[in-house]
Amino acid sequence: MKDTQDRKPDVGGGLDRVGVTNLKTPIQTTWGGRRYYFTPKVEMTIDLGGDRKGVHMSRLIESITEAVGEGSKKPGRSIEEVERRILDVLSRRHRFRRGEIMMETDMVLQRKTPVTGRKTAEVHEIEVAVSKEGRRYYKRLKVRVLGNTVCPHSMEACGRPHIQRAVGELTVESGYDVRVDLEDMVACVEKSFSAEVYTLLKTGDESRIVEEMHSNPKFVEDVTRGIISNARRKFRGCGIKARTVSNESIHRHDVVAEGSAGGGIHIL
Amino acid sequence: MKDTQDRKPDVGGGLDRVGVTNLKTPIQTTWGGRRYYFTPKVEMTIDLGGDRKGVHMSRLIESITEAVGEGSKKPGRSIEEVERRILDVLSRRHRFRRGEIMMETDMVLQRKTPVTGRKTAEVHEIEVAVSKEGRRYYKRLKVRVLGNTVCPHSMEACGRPHIQRAVGELTVESGYDVRVDLEDMVACVEKSFSAEVYTLLKTGDESRIVEEMHSNPKFVEDVTRGIISNARRKFRGCGIKARTVSNESIHRHDVVAEGSAGGGIHIL
Amino acid sequence: MKDTQDRKPDVGGGLDRVGVTNLKTPIQTTWGGRRYYFTPKVEMTIDLGGDRKGVHMSRLIESITEAVGEGSKKPGRSIEEVERRILDVLSRRHRFRRGEIMMETDMVLQRKTPVTGRKTAEVHEIEVAVSKEGRRYYKRLKVRVLGNTVCPHSMEACGRPHIQRAVGELTVESGYDVRVDLEDMVACVEKSFSAEVYTLLKTGDESRIVEEMHSNPKFVEDVTRGIISNARRKFRGCGIKARTVSNESIHRHDVVAEGSAGGGIHIL
Amino acid sequence: MKDTQDRKPDVGGGLDRVGVTNLKTPIQTTWGGRRYYFTPKVEMTIDLGGDRKGVHMSRLIESITEAVGEGSKKPGRSIEEVERRILDVLSRRHRFRRGEIMMETDMVLQRKTPVTGRKTAEVHEIEVAVSKEGRRYYKRLKVRVLGNTVCPHSMEACGRPHIQRAVGELTVESGYDVRVDLEDMVACVEKSFSAEVYTLLKTGDESRIVEEMHSNPKFVEDVTRGIISNARRKFRGCGIKARTVSNESIHRHDVVAEGSAGGGIHIL
Repeated sequence: MKDTQDRKPDVGGGLDRVGVTNLKTPIQTTWGGRRYYFTPKVEMTIDLGGDRKGVHMSRLIESITEAVGEGSKKPGRSIEEVERRILDVLSRRHRFRRGEIMMETDMVLQRKTPVTGRKTAEVHEIEVAVSKEGRRYYKRLKVRVLGNTVCPHSMEACGRPHIQRAVGELTVESGYDVRVDLEDMVACVEKSFSAEVYTLLKTGDESRIVEEMHSNPKFVEDVTRGIISNARRKFRGCGIKARTVSNESIHRHDVVAEGSAGGGIHIL
Repeated sequence: MKDTQDRKPDVGGGLDRVGVTNLKTPIQTTWGGRRYYFTPKVEMTIDLGGDRKGVHMSRLIESITEAVGEGSKKPGRSIEEVERRILDVLSRRHRFRRGEIMMETDMVLQRKTPVTGRKTAEVHEIEVAVSKEGRRYYKRLKVRVLGNTVCPHSMEACGRPHIQRAVGELTVESGYDVRVDLEDMVACVEKSFSAEVYTLLKTGDESRIVEEMHSNPKFVEDVTRGIISNARRKFRGCGIKARTVSNESIHRHDVVAEGSAGGGIHIL
Repeated sequence: MKDTQDRKPDVGGGLDRVGVTNLKTPIQTTWGGRRYYFTPKVEMTIDLGGDRKGVHMSRLIESITEAVGEGSKKPGRSIEEVERRILDVLSRRHRFRRGEIMMETDMVLQRKTPVTGRKTAEVHEIEVAVSKEGRRYYKRLKVRVLGNTVCPHSMEACGRPHIQRAVGELTVESGYDVRVDLEDMVACVEKSFSAEVYTLLKTGDESRIVEEMHSNPKFVEDVTRGIISNARRKFRGCGIKARTVSNESIHRHDVVAEGSAGGGIHIL
Repeated sequence: MKDTQDRKPDVGGGLDRVGVTNLKTPIQTTWGGRRYYFTPKVEMTIDLGGDRKGVHMSRLIESITEAVGEGSKKPGRSIEEVERRILDVLSRRHRFRRGEIMMETDMVLQRKTPVTGRKTAEVHEIEVAVSKEGRRYYKRLKVRVLGNTVCPHSMEACGRPHIQRAVGELTVESGYDVRVDLEDMVACVEKSFSAEVYTLLKTGDESRIVEEMHSNPKFVEDVTRGIISNARRKFRGCGIKARTVSNESIHRHDVVAEGSAGGGIHIL
């Protein structure tokens, strides 16, 4: 007897993305020779033909479990390598033309403060996605980095700025084999703000950053253009998107600027 | 002297979407001859050429204030009409090639319960967006409607289902003048679930709905195909997207199915 | 036959709060002679004795529907009056010793900008709760207001501040009949920031606010003490809580300060 | 010269909780002899006397950095031990009468599915807080566990249930030295649902769980009482709170039941 999923649906029509979402699972990587541990939120989908009622969801989960389980012995180098392995296991368990997997998690970068040289751990939100179409693999990486904007218009109008936290996002899309490091992506965003921010700052560090802020006033438009310009130089041939949102200190609303460059493969 | 915004930026490059977001403002409409009041969350953006440092943000706000202020005397018929008026005011205040405005809010529909006939107010999340490109206007409407899925596979495997809340989303994109009613969009989604849900249910109503659920088992894939099929019949020539997510009662994760039909103008 | 809810539970023990939550419903008020429309998110609960398996949930919904339906003809003056009516209807439908109802929504205040005198609509998040214990009624009102902090330490250390958006919250608890106006609560918070913020600001307004900011540096600690001090003068005899969070522009984390004054009835 | 923070404030008054929030930082533990890695969201506060303008925020961060840095060589056994170490470092750097630290993160438990015996990783949200008052330490642990409810009223009224995802929360407060294991807390909640849920389920597992669900109908009130009853037996002498929310499959709103037992120290 056919499984319910393999029957013909009452209402037909192919679907683009069918699978699991908001699933959390532990993974490991060995980036740069060190072991890293994440518990990302996962979305994993495949396309489904119009002749089949449903996807066998447990096979998606088994692919994650199997690839991640093997991974605990010999982890993938990067999150994208873990994701590619999961899609490869799934290829042997379930029919699909196009499969995608995306993970959202936090990345920790160890830094030193600019003046007093203290150690500080800086945490950024990241999203890493891999898609498989036939035999081709694509990837999309995204970082979300906190910084600030110092208003150049206010600086000119009254000699003093208003300042606020801003959030810069950079998305890079490319073929799977193109080298795109998350650390470099974070740097592209950090360098575009009025000043870099840190979790730990002693008075000397704080003064340096405040002075840097004031000597470097920027609109969100400037930050977004900076991110795009930095990313174009670093990630040649990739599709690039940038978005900056500032949590205005003189308004209740936020201000936003978005831009893009390069071609887009638009996975997910 | 030139305003800071009108100067040449240090780093050039055109931007796709620059403006305000997470702004809340009160608006009114006169849909079907009755007056409706909303306090939507607004995102409003325009494109910006590579030769200008920034957008004059206060002109975006003034356009909202002016159009909504006039609107309190003679409100627009629909949210999309209010949005079109705002873009038209902005056209006279700020240069842009492409402008967009999107509002997110709640819509109330008055209903009766299926058996005992009690009055009940059903509230749905909606998103309404209008874009202006040169002299052309487009719109995109989205509804987010709660319902449920009753697992057909479990029904076959052990004679009993697992049941869970599901959320169905329908997005319709079209030219501004095409008739697309949010009430009809909600109906397209509601009819696709295993059963419709209500805020108020007495025992008789509850039993009817539970019976309807059990006689109508559906995967999220079935719900999504149902939404698309209903929307294609109702909104001919429009771009259609559907997404259903079920909050599984036997898993910690959710299950998702997405599909689309018709051409897409992909505003926003 | 007894309803399932009225049976003895397998595992006994009284419960503090049983009811519905995340329910949205439209309500109206006639504050100051004008009609206002809200679609709040509602949580409504009662206590339950150890001898009864469950609460008759539909009676809670019916109480809302009935009180709000009557209200559309003759609305309550305030949200708290609407809530009290709902609890009174419930008293006739369901046994309870202590009942509570809370609504979360947005409040719009019409303002003028400080220099150019433009009209602007300012929207604040509010929470209004009423409890009934025997024949006594209590209320708790909360406002969440956006503003900013300008760092006095940085001002001293390097002559220039860092500035950021801050969110001030004020909660006032009292007997039902004590006069507590949400507008006054908003004013208590606004006056405590380095400067008030507005949705619409032309260049002249912006310069005034930026100057006010710089001449009025404040820690979150100062803002919280200011809110408490203002609220103690305005709302004598009431329980008062204040919380300020600043979205630091030089850090990835936020800074928080909480304080309280007066007795607390701690409803909800 | 006195630091700005140590000056007398313009408006006086002691504050209850002043510090940092929404801070993310990596920590390690060695629970049960295995090493665990977390990147929790941290809130850390101390009280502040009315004679001092502000808290030296960077000392809070330094205490975290120092205690966690030492911890990478010799990690604390549990999250609460890491937190206690941080408060102890802070005691040497900053004056306070009462200090608190809370971490929110995800916990992974390795399980086997009930029939087919597959390995599956189950992830739960946890909150762990420690407070120090003078020389005394207290702790508060919280778990948030997903499960389901199967409506007993519908089962009686029409022979068939409606079923939905439910979320059970258990909070346990005690002196620092009382043994309270998060794994035991999760078990207290899981056993209280109509059935336990799993990330991976093959058809045999799914049928077993669906049958268990149907033979074990429960209101949210029953789940909450079950959690309290289980926790009272397991954690004698501790303060206990439980809250269950079900995402109703026949309604748009949720249903909630809260209860408590034992004394409360109410930290945070």
